[in-house]
Parts: sequence; structure tokens; C-alpha cells
Amino acid sequence: MQLLDGTACSQQIRKEIATEVEALITQGKRAPHLAAVLVGDDGASQNYVGMKVRDCEEVGFGSTTIRLDANTTEDELLAKIAELNAYDGIDGFIVQLPLPPQIDENKVILAIDPSKDVDGFCPENVGNLSLGLPTFISATPNGIMELLRRYKVETEGKHCVVLGRSNIVGTPMAVLMSRNTNPGNATVTIAHSRTKNLKEVCLSADILIVAIGKTEFVTADMVKPGAVVIDVGQTRVPDSSRKSGFRNVGDVDFENVKDKCSYITYVTGGVGPMTRASLLQNTLKACQRRSNS
Amino acid sequence: MQLLDGTACSQQIRKEIATEVEALITQGKRAPHLAAVLVGDDGASQNYVGMKVRDCEEVGFGSTTIRLDANTTEDELLAKIAELNAYDGIDGFIVQLPLPPQIDENKVILAIDPSKDVDGFCPENVGNLSLGLPTFISATPNGIMELLRRYKVETEGKHCVVLGRSNIVGTPMAVLMSRNTNPGNATVTIAHSRTKNLKEVCLSADILIVAIGKTEFVTADMVKPGAVVIDVGQTRVPDSSRKSGFRNVGDVDFENVKDKCSYITYVTGGVGPMTRASLLQNTLKACQRRSNS
Repeated sequence: MQLLDGTACSQQIRKEIATEVEALITQGKRAPHLAAVLVGDDGASQNYVGMKVRDCEEVGFGSTTIRLDANTTEDELLAKIAELNAYDGIDGFIVQLPLPPQIDENKVILAIDPSKDVDGFCPENVGNLSLGLPTFISATPNGIMELLRRYKVETEGKHCVVLGRSNIVGTPMAVLMSRNTNPGNATVTIAHSRTKNLKEVCLSADILIVAIGKTEFVTADMVKPGAVVIDVGQTRVPDSSRKSGFRNVGDVDFENVKDKCSYITYVTGGVGPMTRASLLQNTLKACQRRSNS
Repeated sequence: MQLLDGTACSQQIRKEIATEVEALITQGKRAPHLAAVLVGDDGASQNYVGMKVRDCEEVGFGSTTIRLDANTTEDELLAKIAELNAYDGIDGFIVQLPLPPQIDENKVILAIDPSKDVDGFCPENVGNLSLGLPTFISATPNGIMELLRRYKVETEGKHCVVLGRSNIVGTPMAVLMSRNTNPGNATVTIAHSRTKNLKEVCLSADILIVAIGKTEFVTADMVKPGAVVIDVGQTRVPDSSRKSGFRNVGDVDFENVKDKCSYITYVTGGVGPMTRASLLQNTLKACQRRSNS
């Protein structure tokens, strides 16, 4: 079994990005600039945004965090988005999800200028992904593709099962793995909560990508010997033995599954850091596009 | 075995559309208007556009056919598209594919205003489909969903294998069948030219949707008893016994497969008429949206 080390891989990517930022500066251009909009005071969201800001600092990007009150109205948020769309000093921005209940997430996503949508959530970018056109690929699927690419995991002709059909992970992941690219060219099955014989479906996977949001859902009896297992799940469960009071648990029963796998990711240091690195890649790309247009 | 009769089903849809057109007229509104752009003189393309125009007449739509010379430049075609985008008397338009080699199809598709893109080919509409947002669904997948819906074919929890991963059929079809809708909620496998064990993959399908463009590719030994088989393929092969000099052959060996199936479509009177009916549905929707906006 080899661990797919997302921490090491993302460090490498951040180094490459930092080099490109230096090159931009040398050319007399400004560094890429990412803005993050944070509405309310959800602990996990604050944590994620904090990490994204630190990532920006590390690679030499500028960053701006816009904190809005939990009572912010939809109109107020949409006005802020219009401002970010128009402001030339920002290359890309994200609106950290989830949003408070008074705000329609779809409306927010549709309001973001596709050229600044570095999360790759808006219809135009999702469509470009499906059509194989230049786009911002949603960060988690992009990070997983990058991990497979850098570890030279063979995917062509393999059976890839994607567990979960969400807009931001499962569905784009399935489309990417089925395309005529490398990684890609896999026979892809999209499985979900309505799938019958889920165990058999998982057992048929050469590559199993799990994004179902249920802790330790994939057990050893569901994994084919030699399979590649990618765990996207990350759920905080209370743990009084930790200083933080919680620990992150994945969708895969890592301890019992790992020895059956050729490659596997762990809940920490796996997909998470790759997702963050992808956001940096997308922001760099947004900056380069703006500078070339 | 029951034949999924696309001709009968599409007649029903055309009737429903004609009734809606009458209602529009009664309300003092104008009828929907579809334009088709035909570049060059490819026989099959002329035939398709001719059928689309006759469909429009039958349901009371207005229609315009714009014929451009085979030597039309990309810029000339893009100028024509800009004109159609701007002209308020046209609700939707299509550019018949394929285009002559001097014209980049992607550029053309990207130039069409998404609100008039009744083929559902442009990124914004493809993305909306993937996100489950209101959109124009590409005509063939939409027609197949309609056929399954009207014949009340059970899809939830079934294993649907889509053979082919094209932008206009295979990929959107797979996404639609995997969504939490009815029809839909299937476990979906996307198979293609790089798939290994294609026979076994097909044999595992409760619903097999074939859009691979190879005549009589799916043979009886590839079909599970009781399966639903949808044949998207339609290839003209020379046939001197016919007045036309050709006959249409599907991707499925219909004669030998049909008795194994619960439901099946035939190469003529199957998916084709449903595709044409979908274009009318999209055009009606475009007209209604414009009238409500």
C-alpha cells in the first residue's frame, strides 16, 4: 500500500506556484489576488478561510477576507459580489459555503463573474468542464486529478466508481475521469444513495472515489484487493481526548481498508490540501488570463 | 418486448405544443419562431433541417432557414449569429452541424446567446443541466428522458450503462440519469472506446443507452434478458434496393436483440423523432421565457 500524500504533493504545487508568482513580479506585473467572502461565524468556515489566506501568503498572492454579519441579506451579499466582479485588483474570489438560510446559494453562485469564479461553481465553468474547454475546475475534483497525475496512477480502461453525485465533487469527478485525457479514460460509474447493491458496485472498482459524507461508510469488505481508494469525506466528530474537542473522520474505514489498497488517501493530509492547492492554481490561472486579455 | 414508439410519443408532444401555441395566439402573443442556419450542401444536414422546418409548420411555429454557402468564412457565420442573437423576432436558433472545415465549431457554439441556444450546446446550458438548474437540455438526451417518462420505464436504482461519452449525447445522458429525478436516480456507468470488458459492462445494464456510432455494435450476447435498450445510432449505409439508395442502421443489432428486451427502440421511429420533438419543446420554452422576461 502506498499513501497518496496530499500534503507533500500540495507543497510541491505551492512551490511551483510561488516560482510563477516570482516570474510575474520580475515581469513587472502584480501578484495574483484572491478574495474570500465569509458570511456569519461558522467555526469550520472560519477555519477553511483562514487556511486559504495562509496559503495565499505562502505562495506570494495577495488576499482579502471580507467578513459579513450572519444577518447579511441576500441583496447585501449580491451587492458585494457585484463590487468584487467589477474591481480590477482582484483576480478571483470565493464565497465560503454554507451560507445562512436567508440567502439562496444558487443566486449567489450565478452572480459571480465566471472569469473570477475560481471555485468553478458557476454554470459556464461547469459546462466548460463537461465540454473539455478551458475552465476553472472545481477545486476538489481538480485536486484529485492532480494527485492521480503526480503519482502516475494508471486510470485508462480502469473501472472508476464515484460514490456521491454532488455538484461540487461527485458529478464533475465522474465527468473528468471519463474524458479522453490522462488521468481519465476510465469507465466510470456514478453511485449514490439510491444505488442498489452498493457493496458489489464498490467491489468492482479499480479506483474508488468516496464523497458520500457518511463517516467510515466504506469498509474493507467493499474494497477490491489492489484498488486505489480516494477519500473525500471529512466529518468533525466530538473527541474529548483532543485539544480541539473534535477529530476529522473520513468516509472510508482507513485502518481496515488500507492494507487491501495499492494506493489510498488518509482523511488528513489527503484530498484536503490538494483542494486548497487547486484553489491557488485556479487563482493563478485567473490572474494570467486577465493579464493576457 | 415492447417497442418504445418515438413516432407516436413525439406526435403526442407535438399535439401538446400545438395547443400551447394556440393559447399564446389567443392571448394576443406571437407564435414561437425557430431559425436554422445551414452552411454548405451536405445531404443529411439539408434533410435534417427540412424535417425541423416541417415540424415547426405542424405545431404552428414560425421558422426561418438561413442557407450559407459552403465557402462561408468563420467571421461571416459569427456575424450571422450576432444578428440572430440580437433579432427579437427569433426565440431560438440552431446551427446545423457538422460545419465546413474552415469554421471552428466551438467558436460558433460559444457565440450563440444562451437564451436562444435551443440545442442546449453552449457551456452555460450544459452547466445548468449538470447543476439541475433551468436550462435547454440537449435534444437527444432530453428526448430519451421524455420517452422513458411517458412509457413509465422504472429507472430508480437500476443500472444504466451509457455507451459513448460525446458532449451532445453520452455525457449529458449519464448526468441526467444519475440525478435525483424521475426518470433518473439510476446508478450510471459511462462506457466508451477505452472501456475494457465492454461485453460484461453491457451485460450488467438494466438500461442500455447506445450512442457509439458503430453499426450493429451491440449484439444479443451483450444484452441482459429483460433490459431496456435505447439505440441512438443512425448511420446511412448504401442500399441499392431502396429508392433513396441507402438505409439507416442503428448501433444495436435490433433483429437479434429485440426478443431479449423488456423495451427497445428501433433505428427509425425511435430516438430520432423524440430528438426533433425536444427541439420544439426547447423553442416553446425559449419563447415563453422571452415573453415572461
